[in-house]
Amino acid sequence: MRILFFLVCLFVFMPLCSQAQTGPSLMPLPQHMEIKDGSLLIDTAFSVTVAGHSDALIRQAVERFVDRLRQHTGMPPLDMRVAKVPPATLEIHITGKTAAEVTNVPKIEDESYTLEISSTKATIEAPTALGAMHGLQTFLQLVENTPAGFAVPAVSIQDQPRFAWRGLMIDSGRHFIPLDVIKRNLDAMEAVKLNIFHWHLSDDQGFRAESKRYPKLTGMGSDGLFYTQQEMREIVRYARDRGIRVVPEFDVPGHATSWFAGYPYLASAPGPYHVERDWGVFNPAMDPTKASTYKFLDIFIGEMAHIFPDRYFHIGGDEVNGKQWSASPRIRAFMSAHHFETNDELQAYFNRRLQKIVQRHGKIMMGWDEILQPDLPKSIVIQSWRGQKSLAQAAQQGYRGILSSGYYLDLIWPASRHYAVDPITDATANLTPEQQKLILGGEACMWSEYASPENIDSRIWPRMAAIAERLWSPQSVQDVNSMYVRMAVLSKELDELGLAQESSYPAMLRRIAGTDDISALRILADVVEPTKDYTRYRSSPVKPTSLVPLNRLIDAARPESITARHFGQLVDAYLAPQGSGTSNAQAAPAISAGAATAPAMTAEPGAAGGTATPPSATGLAAAPDHLAGTPPAAATPVTTATDRAAAIENPAQTEAKIRAMLMRWQNAQAQLQPLEASSFLMKEVTPQAQNLSSVAAAGLQALDYLDQHKQPPPEWTTQQLALLQSAKTRQAQVFLMIVDPVQKLVQASAAGPAVALK
Amino acid sequence: MRILFFLVCLFVFMPLCSQAQTGPSLMPLPQHMEIKDGSLLIDTAFSVTVAGHSDALIRQAVERFVDRLRQHTGMPPLDMRVAKVPPATLEIHITGKTAAEVTNVPKIEDESYTLEISSTKATIEAPTALGAMHGLQTFLQLVENTPAGFAVPAVSIQDQPRFAWRGLMIDSGRHFIPLDVIKRNLDAMEAVKLNIFHWHLSDDQGFRAESKRYPKLTGMGSDGLFYTQQEMREIVRYARDRGIRVVPEFDVPGHATSWFAGYPYLASAPGPYHVERDWGVFNPAMDPTKASTYKFLDIFIGEMAHIFPDRYFHIGGDEVNGKQWSASPRIRAFMSAHHFETNDELQAYFNRRLQKIVQRHGKIMMGWDEILQPDLPKSIVIQSWRGQKSLAQAAQQGYRGILSSGYYLDLIWPASRHYAVDPITDATANLTPEQQKLILGGEACMWSEYASPENIDSRIWPRMAAIAERLWSPQSVQDVNSMYVRMAVLSKELDELGLAQESSYPAMLRRIAGTDDISALRILADVVEPTKDYTRYRSSPVKPTSLVPLNRLIDAARPESITARHFGQLVDAYLAPQGSGTSNAQAAPAISAGAATAPAMTAEPGAAGGTATPPSATGLAAAPDHLAGTPPAAATPVTTATDRAAAIENPAQTEAKIRAMLMRWQNAQAQLQPLEASSFLMKEVTPQAQNLSSVAAAGLQALDYLDQHKQPPPEWTTQQLALLQSAKTRQAQVFLMIVDPVQKLVQASAAGPAVALK
Repeated sequence: MRILFFLVCLFVFMPLCSQAQTGPSLMPLPQHMEIKDGSLLIDTAFSVTVAGHSDALIRQAVERFVDRLRQHTGMPPLDMRVAKVPPATLEIHITGKTAAEVTNVPKIEDESYTLEISSTKATIEAPTALGAMHGLQTFLQLVENTPAGFAVPAVSIQDQPRFAWRGLMIDSGRHFIPLDVIKRNLDAMEAVKLNIFHWHLSDDQGFRAESKRYPKLTGMGSDGLFYTQQEMREIVRYARDRGIRVVPEFDVPGHATSWFAGYPYLASAPGPYHVERDWGVFNPAMDPTKASTYKFLDIFIGEMAHIFPDRYFHIGGDEVNGKQWSASPRIRAFMSAHHFETNDELQAYFNRRLQKIVQRHGKIMMGWDEILQPDLPKSIVIQSWRGQKSLAQAAQQGYRGILSSGYYLDLIWPASRHYAVDPITDATANLTPEQQKLILGGEACMWSEYASPENIDSRIWPRMAAIAERLWSPQSVQDVNSMYVRMAVLSKELDELGLAQESSYPAMLRRIAGTDDISALRILADVVEPTKDYTRYRSSPVKPTSLVPLNRLIDAARPESITARHFGQLVDAYLAPQGSGTSNAQAAPAISAGAATAPAMTAEPGAAGGTATPPSATGLAAAPDHLAGTPPAAATPVTTATDRAAAIENPAQTEAKIRAMLMRWQNAQAQLQPLEASSFLMKEVTPQAQNLSSVAAAGLQALDYLDQHKQPPPEWTTQQLALLQSAKTRQAQVFLMIVDPVQKLVQASAAGPAVALK
Repeated sequence: MRILFFLVCLFVFMPLCSQAQTGPSLMPLPQHMEIKDGSLLIDTAFSVTVAGHSDALIRQAVERFVDRLRQHTGMPPLDMRVAKVPPATLEIHITGKTAAEVTNVPKIEDESYTLEISSTKATIEAPTALGAMHGLQTFLQLVENTPAGFAVPAVSIQDQPRFAWRGLMIDSGRHFIPLDVIKRNLDAMEAVKLNIFHWHLSDDQGFRAESKRYPKLTGMGSDGLFYTQQEMREIVRYARDRGIRVVPEFDVPGHATSWFAGYPYLASAPGPYHVERDWGVFNPAMDPTKASTYKFLDIFIGEMAHIFPDRYFHIGGDEVNGKQWSASPRIRAFMSAHHFETNDELQAYFNRRLQKIVQRHGKIMMGWDEILQPDLPKSIVIQSWRGQKSLAQAAQQGYRGILSSGYYLDLIWPASRHYAVDPITDATANLTPEQQKLILGGEACMWSEYASPENIDSRIWPRMAAIAERLWSPQSVQDVNSMYVRMAVLSKELDELGLAQESSYPAMLRRIAGTDDISALRILADVVEPTKDYTRYRSSPVKPTSLVPLNRLIDAARPESITARHFGQLVDAYLAPQGSGTSNAQAAPAISAGAATAPAMTAEPGAAGGTATPPSATGLAAAPDHLAGTPPAAATPVTTATDRAAAIENPAQTEAKIRAMLMRWQNAQAQLQPLEASSFLMKEVTPQAQNLSSVAAAGLQALDYLDQHKQPPPEWTTQQLALLQSAKTRQAQVFLMIVDPVQKLVQASAAGPAVALK
């Protein structure tokens, strides 16, 4: 819903863009879009109607749509009508009755739509209400503030998702996530056309779903932090209104300590048990040998089956270490009697019995990779945290699956890295077309060891949008620069929707600074990123538990420093040989800068996500020459892509920008140092501020050498490189993300005037 | 809840401050506070308990208190216990049973409390839960982020309100204000110890309260925008939990067009009627001659009396122009028969009958000035929009009253002007002590012609806090600079609470700019103020109605430009003769700058609020000499007061600050001009940007002359003064608030080196 000039259309809709160089910022990108002349005004006379078939789902969606339009334009609640019958400015035609209305259970269904906008009228046509709702979201993203008033450009869009399963998992077990936070995340999911909310409702650290049959589940397993049945029903309804299905997960037989706090007899060793405060994989597991275990699960799942109407029911099944089983003579005897040689076989037995229970309650069982064992019916769905290979194996056996490996948001990767992960690559790309159809899609996972209600939005958004685009848009949509530009626009739109990833940032910085003037702290925080993968636990200054406050710089810092990414691109452009802007070879390092500058990403052993491939290097490099000669429109926010284009034109301006950034960083420390005396949360921050200042100074000196076409003394270079090496070290559990580009400047200056080409 | 160095304690608690120059930022200031050595840590071990008598009111308040502490410190939900019994870090003792619990109706009751904090323990003692709740709010405002962790300073506070009636009226009639907006305003009211929410529920433009007896009131009078009875009960409960009483207002017999849309027989002329879209005073009025009118009101008030448990019931009664009455032969005949010579006498008759109805339903009638007529019982309460004189007249006749004149937030005055208005000044100051007791307090009014759910918070807050302090704190609390410093802190605290006066500002600017980069627009918006008093209607480019979008610069701009106020103080300090910092005469203009620089404030005839006295000139001027020599602590945000102190020390720094501001303003236009081509909302803004640039250029040139000790050519001075005069003109319905200080610079430069003392 912003005017933005960006380059995406150059690659996706190349033929159009030679005429129209400005284009709407859509995310996910539609399958096909044609931009036409003219635009349709959105003023107080705007009206919308559902022509022909209509149901409650689309009607409430239209009401919310008009509310959003009013909010975005500032128009009062009485303007912009929902008309009972045509004509209206925007007419919605639903060609078939939606499955959602018939069964009250949203299913995997046709989500396609077309959106036609002329200067006088707009039409959305879709076979289902769900498709039409996606069309409404696209319409909202098209709204611009033009010289003539709010408007949408004339376009012709034909769109449908690449994958039917496009999900987000939120872990309410490890940290309780309040209802309003869940709701606003559902709002955001709707905006990027996600359709599955996978709700991880129990884990060792907490049982969050009220059971009336087993009240001690939350009574003793939740610290009082749980969702009532009414609240869960409210979430189901709220999600359904937004075209989102809710798949609940109750993780068994492991990750289940919180069950045992109230019902120790479910466990494989005597209690007592208490909710776990620590993070990790723990020994307690359900006893798969006792009839009482299955009876309990039968009653409990039966109760939950009524609350969650979706056909899919997730039973977890991951990370059972088997220690309690191996330690129990009784369980070992049971295994012998059944000729189970491994704990995995015992878990497979458990899963077979569990699957029958789930099926009896009308549900299809889902689970993590580990549940894939012989003898389970082909109806089950595998959620793979292990990767495409694991998914391919499942598909070869005829099992459906979704990919989550590479989509773990809590690993704090750059969006570009998630964006490069595709459900159909590597092992899955080699499947037969029939087998590939079993890959339903993917799901991002937000595990909440280090996420609080305050900062979880910033862990999920806007990076989630990159995954949403991967799962919706054609596989050929790969331009990382375009994705970043549109993701930034989307983040502001989500802010308008009430998401907190933008607004919680200054609030958390104010707390750390202990004062309202966070300008200096923000300069630092803007260029650091939290430690990645699973390194937070072991690098923590105090043992991190569920009771440790999440109020430090690492908790406020954004997962990805867009400022550092921008800086890296400016440096690359500055150092690039003149006229190299059209060369693929030069552009590549800038595009993968996000991943490349995270020092710990590959250095730490045990880091997850080895399956992710580095972002492919399409993008600016492919820009046609005529673009570089076209200055961006005046109203255009500075984007990384246009900066790069400009840089090629004018190295002096690029240098001035680099210098201004370095000076700001160099100066921040002087303002930050005094805060240490007044705020205890600042104490761990100031060494990183010292780093920032030193690194920036090195960069400025290197720029001076480059400017004066002088070669620095070798000892200076040696000193600076040592300093930079040390500045790459994790400090306060965050990384300074500008070190690599500065190192490039130092190295370029050391190479001397003959090599540095400017 | 911030560390701030400020000057208030110098004037209020002078004896302490020579030892402790940093102090907590409380608002309203307590009656008595002593700051001691040490502080009490707020860590995860913090606990709170209600010792002795306890009730539901205090228990939920304690839960909310602990939630706020957790939110502010970022501590997880399981930390910081509410203990069932002592000992606890904070112990609350309630010495008497509260009236609230007994009757479920909060009454005017003892709101006093004491708060004692040592380095090991804190105690709140109060006769009522309400008093203890005020103590909890004070405690929250004391929380600092210290070198040792979050903490509250050791203090001894004895506090109680000056007035029993401290209210805020919100007009939900003219623009519907959604439930969540009302709720967050109640949160804010609690934070500044207000205790009355006066809810204006009907007016010509809308009837907002569901009646089951008369469903057409909202059915035909609300455009579907109204509160259900359940929602109103929810607000009553929500307010009561925060120590706030809800006084509903149904305005009769005038301001009642929305009643007549569904029930035209209530009016004094035949219908049909429709809800009014225009603003102003309209002719329709209830027919006071018909029995059916009183029967309707009896049933309706009876219904509402059950929803609103408070003893007070507001019947409006203002601005009846009498035209329908005069035009009706039947009504004229009725008047003759009753020997009423004027319409006022007819309204008095109506009020007498209405008062009996209100009384029969167990309520005390309130109304605006106009209801004060002979023969009404002394129990009624007069709300005065006319001023202290009107209030004094009522008191002399034995009627109780509250002051609202001078507290109309929709008139867009600076906080200092509201702050200077006191219920006991002028006419009321001359009353006998017994008569003065009839002045119960005051109420701010937020009429909503030009307020939307999006910007109403910014119209109310933070300026409301200045009025709250006037009504709570001792009359001797008069330091305007201190008030501004603390009000800025409070505004951030309210932002943390969820109020939108800070967060809606950039959001609205983004809409106007049509892009996310609002840096230049914000530079302009920060130094303009909306047109004041009742000038918006007549100066509007299009006829303003309830259907006109509130999405322009005037809607986004804050009522008071703190930046311009700050600039004015810097200029005054810069131009002040050396060493004059301790002179009252010099300080005064800076303090009243807010009012002085609003060109339209007194220029427009018909401007309301003539009773407000200009802010009194206490404050910085009275600062002891030793202060100027003490630099502010390093962590201290720059405050206007400390800036002034610093300026006296170092004129070169002051000049540098002035120059930097002027340059920023001069440069903003170049960035703003291009936006006009892309956003229609920018079109009216750019001329003001041109003004800003020209005015800033004049200021910079004047500074140059002053710097070089040269006198400018007289024609330059003439030109510049003409330019400034023209820049004072309203443009896009906003005023540029930096013109007066720039004019001072130009005049000082014109006076030449001999007169300009630097």
